[in-house]
Amino acid sequence: MTYYRFADRMIHAPASFIDELFRVSGEPGVISFAGGLPDAALIDRDGIARAAGAVMEEEGRCALQYSTTDGYRPLREYIAARYRRRLGIAAEADDIQIVNGSQQCLDLMAKIFLNPGDAVGMERPGYLGAIEAFSLYEPEICTVPLGDRGPDMEAFGALIHNRAPKFFYGIPNSQNPSGITYPDDARREIARLLDGSGTLFYEDDAFGELFFDGTPRPPVKKYLPDGAVLSGSFSKIVAPGMRIGWILAPPPVLQQFNAAKQAADLHSNFLCQVVLHHYLSDTDLDAHVRRVSRIYGERCRTMCDLIDDRLPAGVARTTPEGGMFLMVFLPPGVSSMDIFREGVRHGVAVLPGVPFYAGGGGEHAIRLNFSNADETNIVEGMERLARVVRGCV
Amino acid sequence: MTYYRFADRMIHAPASFIDELFRVSGEPGVISFAGGLPDAALIDRDGIARAAGAVMEEEGRCALQYSTTDGYRPLREYIAARYRRRLGIAAEADDIQIVNGSQQCLDLMAKIFLNPGDAVGMERPGYLGAIEAFSLYEPEICTVPLGDRGPDMEAFGALIHNRAPKFFYGIPNSQNPSGITYPDDARREIARLLDGSGTLFYEDDAFGELFFDGTPRPPVKKYLPDGAVLSGSFSKIVAPGMRIGWILAPPPVLQQFNAAKQAADLHSNFLCQVVLHHYLSDTDLDAHVRRVSRIYGERCRTMCDLIDDRLPAGVARTTPEGGMFLMVFLPPGVSSMDIFREGVRHGVAVLPGVPFYAGGGGEHAIRLNFSNADETNIVEGMERLARVVRGCV
Repeated sequence: MTYYRFADRMIHAPASFIDELFRVSGEPGVISFAGGLPDAALIDRDGIARAAGAVMEEEGRCALQYSTTDGYRPLREYIAARYRRRLGIAAEADDIQIVNGSQQCLDLMAKIFLNPGDAVGMERPGYLGAIEAFSLYEPEICTVPLGDRGPDMEAFGALIHNRAPKFFYGIPNSQNPSGITYPDDARREIARLLDGSGTLFYEDDAFGELFFDGTPRPPVKKYLPDGAVLSGSFSKIVAPGMRIGWILAPPPVLQQFNAAKQAADLHSNFLCQVVLHHYLSDTDLDAHVRRVSRIYGERCRTMCDLIDDRLPAGVARTTPEGGMFLMVFLPPGVSSMDIFREGVRHGVAVLPGVPFYAGGGGEHAIRLNFSNADETNIVEGMERLARVVRGCV
Repeated sequence: MTYYRFADRMIHAPASFIDELFRVSGEPGVISFAGGLPDAALIDRDGIARAAGAVMEEEGRCALQYSTTDGYRPLREYIAARYRRRLGIAAEADDIQIVNGSQQCLDLMAKIFLNPGDAVGMERPGYLGAIEAFSLYEPEICTVPLGDRGPDMEAFGALIHNRAPKFFYGIPNSQNPSGITYPDDARREIARLLDGSGTLFYEDDAFGELFFDGTPRPPVKKYLPDGAVLSGSFSKIVAPGMRIGWILAPPPVLQQFNAAKQAADLHSNFLCQVVLHHYLSDTDLDAHVRRVSRIYGERCRTMCDLIDDRLPAGVARTTPEGGMFLMVFLPPGVSSMDIFREGVRHGVAVLPGVPFYAGGGGEHAIRLNFSNADETNIVEGMERLARVVRGCV
């Protein structure tokens, strides 16, 4: 008899793409628009190094000891104060739980809410990491088409009314994979439709600091304080390797979330929480974020211009206002999997859209990342991609 | 309608004690034997600080970027080489996955193996964090009494035969909470009973480096290579605040484990993985572990002697060979909850046994931690405890 009698949830899990991405992205000579990395050259290495040195000197033993599940209180106070100042939403340290990057929120939100067979809503296309995390809890993933004006509101309303999903997961700011930002009226309408519905809005805000114009957009949570949870991350604005994100949630949710977090791994890396807080206390994060956003904005415009200039007729794209991604839609008959395979042969990696479409679709969509290639590589990579696409049309 | 329609698994979850422990442990004037902390004074703060400085200088941007799910390869090579040298078991980097402290192994092992209603085996008493992690997957937790000679082999064999649990979770080295170490014949017998049974042995080895005599014990995995997974942690031998543990598992298990880890949080804190590896490459871990083990051994002997000298007749205790805990059994009629409450009033915190007994029991047992109090505090704390127990008998 085999020892390896895995749980049913593992059999249902979709095969993962994310690790393969990192592999393809790293092949020599390949210009990669496939990954989802911020530009490491923009990480404030020296500032973080100074903070690490000071923490080890002043409070190293404490930062190296076990800590509590909720997270380092001064860091949670910083996050809460930033919410109050930037977005004008009520937030206190006690409303916040630190996690291992906002991916952990996906796992724990699914864990505390989803029974097998429960409906859960998300955008189509939607974030691949969310599909992977949710799938292990065996829900029925119900998708709503996402367009330039946000989620299709008729489909959204019907989903909430007919299926009463436990929560709807969305990324209103510079969505992954599409780069779409919900307009303000869509945010208000979502709050109106969810108010009192029994469906929570799970608002993933990994990219909200990276608007190219530097202007924050009001979160859905502002219009739906008790009916929304909001997750955030330092991965894109400070450094991903520290794996520090958080969730802002109403007290009943936070209590269950905390219990699930404790069972999952006791607490997040405490040393990096203390180092990160020391760094933030000593740096002008606004200025840093403005600089990163400006550079990503330039790269995005370069990429958009090259798509418009070089790719054949019939190609469409999204127009990001921020973030790290945009989406290209190929003409009918052109397969994104073919573009992926041919692209790697010609030295450019893109990400096929299929895994982002939980309900099927995406055969003609590709996701492009513009944050982790400089202007030279964007120009050269887009030339290669243009040749590949023209060869496939 | 409320937004907070939690999953059934949360309703079944036992209330947690662990965070409360930290709170009680921190009250001023209380000498705490209740927690589970290594002594922060024994952490090599200066060595880790040097490693952190060097990593930030030499490869900071890389260590601050996203990485792969499996973990930093040089660190996995270090762990594998240490297994080969210390324990004589076959291990390569590819057999190892890095996690956020070995608590995350508990969550992910339960996630990949347990359907609701599945049987899972563990010791009685058993590790509280395991009971909490497993419970969220709604298994039937089946316990086997643990005594000075290891698990009751008759009960163990009957459990495997009658219930075919997906895995049996045990801590053969200096078990938490009892401090009991399985003798070698128990290890061989477990491997014999499990061989070909379909039940995996999940061997948690958080304390195996902390034998007071400095001699490693052979893991069950040595006798059952394909039928055991072995988890380990740097929390007790380097520093808990970095949250770095690992699992050594056969390839089919590791593949599912890796998929679950990726969905849970993409990867563990990469900065600390690189810093930890740099530290380990530059330090004599054997010498450090010998020193820590010797000091814990002295504290354990002091505590054992005071139990024998000062506590009333009818009190029994375990005799640890290593680790950080021992267990005291009070005379019938004396409640460990009373001792807990009275203890805090008299300035000494102990941990009642009840939450460690998944199948019920433990009313007269208390767990004492000897790693995180120096000799002076052990003497004073045990005097206080003796007064409390004498007052309750």
